[in-house]
Amino acid sequence: MSERFFLTAPPHDGLATLQDDEARHLVRVVRAKIGDMIVVFDGTGCHWSARVSEIKRNKVLLDVEALPLDACVTAGPEVWLAIALPKGDRQKWMVEKLTELGVARLIPLQTLRGVAEATDNSQARMERVVIEACKQSGRNTLMDIAKSHSLSSLIESLPSGARLLIADPGGVPLAIDQAAIPAEQTLTPVVALIGPEGGFTQAELITADRAGARRVSLGSHLLRIETAAIALAAKLL
Amino acid sequence: MSERFFLTAPPHDGLATLQDDEARHLVRVVRAKIGDMIVVFDGTGCHWSARVSEIKRNKVLLDVEALPLDACVTAGPEVWLAIALPKGDRQKWMVEKLTELGVARLIPLQTLRGVAEATDNSQARMERVVIEACKQSGRNTLMDIAKSHSLSSLIESLPSGARLLIADPGGVPLAIDQAAIPAEQTLTPVVALIGPEGGFTQAELITADRAGARRVSLGSHLLRIETAAIALAAKLL
Repeated sequence: MSERFFLTAPPHDGLATLQDDEARHLVRVVRAKIGDMIVVFDGTGCHWSARVSEIKRNKVLLDVEALPLDACVTAGPEVWLAIALPKGDRQKWMVEKLTELGVARLIPLQTLRGVAEATDNSQARMERVVIEACKQSGRNTLMDIAKSHSLSSLIESLPSGARLLIADPGGVPLAIDQAAIPAEQTLTPVVALIGPEGGFTQAELITADRAGARRVSLGSHLLRIETAAIALAAKLL
Repeated sequence: MSERFFLTAPPHDGLATLQDDEARHLVRVVRAKIGDMIVVFDGTGCHWSARVSEIKRNKVLLDVEALPLDACVTAGPEVWLAIALPKGDRQKWMVEKLTELGVARLIPLQTLRGVAEATDNSQARMERVVIEACKQSGRNTLMDIAKSHSLSSLIESLPSGARLLIADPGGVPLAIDQAAIPAEQTLTPVVALIGPEGGFTQAELITADRAGARRVSLGSHLLRIETAAIALAAKLL
């Protein structure tokens, strides 16, 4: 499991190419040679055995086995988290942990009291953390890092049937039996909203209420953003 | 909530003293003056309003209100986690999150494949992280950092009635409805064992089996130690 490599494009006619960081990691860190066998995944759910066939500058060509190693299916509910991003290391940690736990999509949430803006740079940085966490944890589908949304634009864009939760210290405790997702609802995502350290404003809470969001609390302590996000993911997955 | 200070000894006759780090933080960072009101907690479950009465070198004297701010009771189940500690930042981060979530006790677990040893230094470092996380999250009882144990010595020392879980990828998924702790069992702790990245050995699993531990898995991905610990805490609390 430890030596897994990410393909930016799926294998085609039994061939694939590792690019840039992944190619350099394979050649310089793992010191792979022509003929070595590795495992590759393309982020859509499959992973394959592959043989190193040619090593170029910043690029490694691979012969990929025709059949993937497992069925390319991910079971279970889709959990999306819309989060007023924390900054720096806390953001990086959070993305790593949410990827390991199996969150399907992270949506940076613009809130009145939020401290970190989602920029193209932070998006790219988070995507890199996702790939690393997938390589390490054996996850074959990337966690999607969506474009950032305001609360209203997020609510407008949700698929119909999505179950909406909003983390709020004044909410009812997220009871463990309520967290379980009925089998018939596994096709629509559960979308949990996590606000900034200062909390959602009353106006934001009311916007979420009107969209049918259930206010849930996560215990009696004041949780940091990343703690709330990881705890919610663990309860829902 | 943001300016909370830790007392190493409980108030006595309406008086208390902040020592060392806490005193320096109050004077140099918060720049408190005689007469300022702060909130103090002693780690056993209570917090009080207090007035700064005298500022000395590395020491601040306080007049403490007779009655604590809330009832000094913590409700709910006791969750203990026995963990093959991760190293460095991952250890620090894990202790912070487990404190925020309300874990009662962390027991460093000696395992064959573990990488980090629990030393007096690491114990002191973890205790400092616990205090900081309590100050920040509004938690009034410290998470206890126990002395490190082998699996056998831990099992011998458990209170009777303790419910034992062991995290193992080959176990049954920790079903959400099983995680809930029946009210009649809230007086005995739930003790969850979390092994090193390389996993528990067969011998260690069998030792746990014999003690009645339930093998539980936490999903299909390979979780880092701190991720498994935080996910288990979130599911159990």
